[in-house]
Order: sequence, then C-alpha cells, then structure tokens
Amino acid sequence: MKRAVILLSGGLDSTTCLAIAKNQGFDLFSLTVNYGQRHLFELQSAKNIALSYDVEKHSILNVDLGQFGGSALTDDIEVPKDRVDSEMNQIPVTYVPARNTVLLSLALALAETLNSFDIYIGVNALDYSGYPDCRPEYIESFEQTANLATKSGVENAGKFKIHTPLIDLTKAEIIQKGTALNVDYSLTCSCYDPQKNGDPCGHCDACILRRTGFIKAGVLDPLEYPD
Amino acid sequence: MKRAVILLSGGLDSTTCLAIAKNQGFDLFSLTVNYGQRHLFELQSAKNIALSYDVEKHSILNVDLGQFGGSALTDDIEVPKDRVDSEMNQIPVTYVPARNTVLLSLALALAETLNSFDIYIGVNALDYSGYPDCRPEYIESFEQTANLATKSGVENAGKFKIHTPLIDLTKAEIIQKGTALNVDYSLTCSCYDPQKNGDPCGHCDACILRRTGFIKAGVLDPLEYPD
Repeated sequence: MKRAVILLSGGLDSTTCLAIAKNQGFDLFSLTVNYGQRHLFELQSAKNIALSYDVEKHSILNVDLGQFGGSALTDDIEVPKDRVDSEMNQIPVTYVPARNTVLLSLALALAETLNSFDIYIGVNALDYSGYPDCRPEYIESFEQTANLATKSGVENAGKFKIHTPLIDLTKAEIIQKGTALNVDYSLTCSCYDPQKNGDPCGHCDACILRRTGFIKAGVLDPLEYPD
Repeated sequence: MKRAVILLSGGLDSTTCLAIAKNQGFDLFSLTVNYGQRHLFELQSAKNIALSYDVEKHSILNVDLGQFGGSALTDDIEVPKDRVDSEMNQIPVTYVPARNTVLLSLALALAETLNSFDIYIGVNALDYSGYPDCRPEYIESFEQTANLATKSGVENAGKFKIHTPLIDLTKAEIIQKGTALNVDYSLTCSCYDPQKNGDPCGHCDACILRRTGFIKAGVLDPLEYPD
C-alpha cells in the first residue's frame, strides 16, 4: 500500500483531506505541527481524529514559531472578530509568516524517511482568508522545490506530489465532500480563539467561514456556538 | 541598516557566510536550528560565534527531526569514516531528509517577521558531500517559492534573496575568503562525530573536506586532530 503524509491541524479542512487520502487507498501518516498556536484544543482534536482514522502513525512535532512572533496566532496580537467582506481581501493578522512552507518542508522530511511521495495539505484558495501560501501557484512552486531538494527527487525513485484536493472547492463543497465520506466534524476544531471550555468563539474568520459553509452546504454543524 | 538572517550551524561554511554578510553591511540576525544532531558541540560553537560577531539577535530553534530518523546525523546510524573519492559521488547516510528546505523555511519565517528580505546559507556545490539541497537549481527554486509563499512577497514590499556566497567556491577558497575577513576558525566545529571532549574525529567526510581545504588554502587549521 502506498504511504501518504497528511498535514493534520485538527481543523475541518485537514480532516476532510485525511478522509480523502484514506478513500484514495493510502496508508496514512498524519503530521501535526505544534507551532505555538494560541491554544492547544486543535492539537487534542488532531490526536482524536488520527485515532478515529486508525492512522499508521501520528507524529506531533514542536516548532516554536511563537519565538519569532508576527502573527495573531502565535503572538500577543488580538484575533479580529466579525470582519466584513470588504476587509476579507486583505491578508489578516492571523497570517503566520511562512507557515505553510514550514509545514510542507517538515512533511517533506517525514515523507522522505517513509519512502512516501504523496503529501496532503488542506489549503483552499476560494473560501480562505487571503493567505498567500494557499494559492495554486505557491503549491506548484513548492512541489518543484521538493523534487530538487531531496535524495528521492534526485535519484528519480519517484516524484513528490503535493495533493491539494480542496484547493478549488468552496467551504460548503468541502463540507459536502467530507459528509459523503462520513467525516465526523464534531471532532474538528476550526476556531482561532476558542472559549475556555474549547467551544468556538463564533466570530473569528475561521468560525465565520465554517458557519457560513455549513449553512450553504445544508449540513448541521455539530459544534455549539455562543449565540 | 538592512537586516539579514544567517543560518548559522557553527561550522566553517556558515561562519564564513556570517562574516561575508557583516562585510556587506547587513544588520545580523543569526538562526541556529537544533534539529537533533548527534552532538551539541555545534550548537555551543554557534553561540560563541554569534557572540563574537555581536549579532543583533541569535535565535535557537528546536525542531526534532530525529523523531523522523533516516540520517546518520539524527539517527542511530554510524557516521562513515575515511570514505574514498569513488564513494564521494553517492549521497551519503549523513544526508538529512529535506534538511535545507526545513532550515530555509524557518529562516524565511524569521526574515518575514523582521522585515528582512536577505537570507544567507553556506551551501557549497563543489567540495560538498553530494547533498541535493546544496545545488544552485535547488536554491533558485526555493527562492521562487519564498516569493510566492509570503505576504511580503505578494505585497511586493521586497523580493526575498537567498544568498549563497560560497556556492561556487572550493573549500580552500572559502577558507581563504574567511581568513581575509579575519574569521576565527578556532571557534568553528565541522565534525559529524566529535570525540568526547569536542575535538574533531578527523575522519568523517566533514573533517576530511575541512582538513584538505586548509592544506590547499595554505592556512593552518587551528583545530587539533587525533593524528
């Protein structure tokens, strides 16, 4: 069975990615990077999800990007709430500098040790927050770099592929796809700034995209929101 | 003053890079990644070197690539000694999967938070060990990826440049360049497998390249070797 590395944050998108990789017949190796996010509910969600998918191995790697700062997700900057559409075209303060490049490079390192050439990342270029490292041209460029960077790439044992099965989907379509694959979205955690008990805030970009997505998909979001 | 991020391992090449960046007038931010190398003498060397260059800030980031294994530098695999020339064309077991991609992505994350567009890495495509991620085509590809990956790249605030001032030099030329810039090579640590007191083994690829380099450069290596 071919092996795949799946970047698993514990959120809706990466969990749907995991379900898709499973459905495509891969042996699953999930990787969660604890990069100094504001909260650890995500990490716990990722563990629960990996367990429920019976992955071959779930790796958790600590990389303290909070040491560098520069983002509302890793630094002492307030997470914006209830942003309006006109603001949605700007890259928000929740952008973590070079995050997906760090995540993909670590996934590449893991994949190469596993003799795997398939990496899944749940980036999305439609209903997203304007992050530059979610665009198709970025992913294509990283894939080229990966094939030049590695022993496996150079020795032509195979060719690395960065799978982005969600990149062209709306949030509603992602939820529909996941629902068709029996994803249990009650296990996922999307919120940037959850309440003390781990329940979502309901008002950050991630919550708004998720809530709107479930409504448009005609699917009930199993999470509870404060209002 | 323009800021530069310099990947500083504590070895001969990265230290020469630091001296070159200083000579080019940059405000220096050194970054050492503790990725689970076999020994920590390198890390101590990096600290001493950063101090001696009076850098603006020296960051040390822990990323446990040893968790993934797959290399003699991070795993329980023996470091090869006294390899002969005919073996030097093969990628050796000291290759760390995707290492330079991980290092450069972390340097990119740091650079973006510092509003810096200049990253120095001491890769070398001549007297090297055949690592794929030391080749010019790899570096060029990463640079393209970096400019697609980041807010700074997208907003055209500047263009990231991966500086590789050593890439076309022989080890002897690197040593001559560093010597001209008054690099104190007694502070550096090149060996993959040092003795218990931190002295180099003298026989791993890194030691052989270094020793031969100093001889060809006509410069005395300040380190002591066992024979």
